[in-house]
Amino acid sequence: MRIAIASDHAALELKAILADWLRESGHDVDDLGPYDEGRVDYPDYGYKLAQAVGSGLAERGVALCGSGIGISIAVNRHPACRCARVDDSLSASLAREHNDANVIALGARLIGVDMAKACIAAFLETEFAGGRHGPRVEKLTHPIFSKEPA
Amino acid sequence: MRIAIASDHAALELKAILADWLRESGHDVDDLGPYDEGRVDYPDYGYKLAQAVGSGLAERGVALCGSGIGISIAVNRHPACRCARVDDSLSASLAREHNDANVIALGARLIGVDMAKACIAAFLETEFAGGRHGPRVEKLTHPIFSKEPA
Repeated sequence: MRIAIASDHAALELKAILADWLRESGHDVDDLGPYDEGRVDYPDYGYKLAQAVGSGLAERGVALCGSGIGISIAVNRHPACRCARVDDSLSASLAREHNDANVIALGARLIGVDMAKACIAAFLETEFAGGRHGPRVEKLTHPIFSKEPA
Repeated sequence: MRIAIASDHAALELKAILADWLRESGHDVDDLGPYDEGRVDYPDYGYKLAQAVGSGLAERGVALCGSGIGISIAVNRHPACRCARVDDSLSASLAREHNDANVIALGARLIGVDMAKACIAAFLETEFAGGRHGPRVEKLTHPIFSKEPA
């Protein structure tokens, strides 16, 4: 699978570990940065990842920051992205099954490496259930809000 | 504090419990629905809540669905909303401290009532830290994506 991954400075080390692990698992991984330890703003990398997944360049995305919260908000600004910030693999499965999530967000300062891998594995392996969930996901794709804040 | 709360059918019972608890704690709670057990689509209620918080009618929002994921995606479509889907109170604090989150999302089928209350308490009591986090939050308010999917 073609997977884009991005983070902020707080999640640089976890990004490297997960990118290597995904490549070893046979995936085509696009690391969108950052590439050094300088401080960055998570929205910049969240938007970069959102563009990659939202445009279809990547099938799935992995978004990382200190808590996973900031970057998940940024990714969800893109109407074609459905980003789930999770701490456990059941949530990761449900995000696929019910919400057809195409991006997973994890908090590098809160989650251990093995749980992060378990979440991503569930996220990559679980199929969208469709059915009654389809029209709901469709509603997420056509947001009703304008570009500018109210 | 003026707090709007909304859910889908899966979180109807938790919504009632939390709305009562918030009122007992002295908050002004606006329950945006649903009001009966019929099945609904979480994006409809997420958008309703996002409009209430994004427009300033409510200072904070509590968003509930089965996993908290679907409704968090919906709320984050609004450029003035910063919705954190959390499972623990440390994450709820960080959402306020670093991301100035104005909506919290919880999964009624995954979280216990006491942890839900602890998350909301942390979310209501924690101040935004400002400083270096300010420009990052500002970037979330001016998203770069158009209304239509790419």
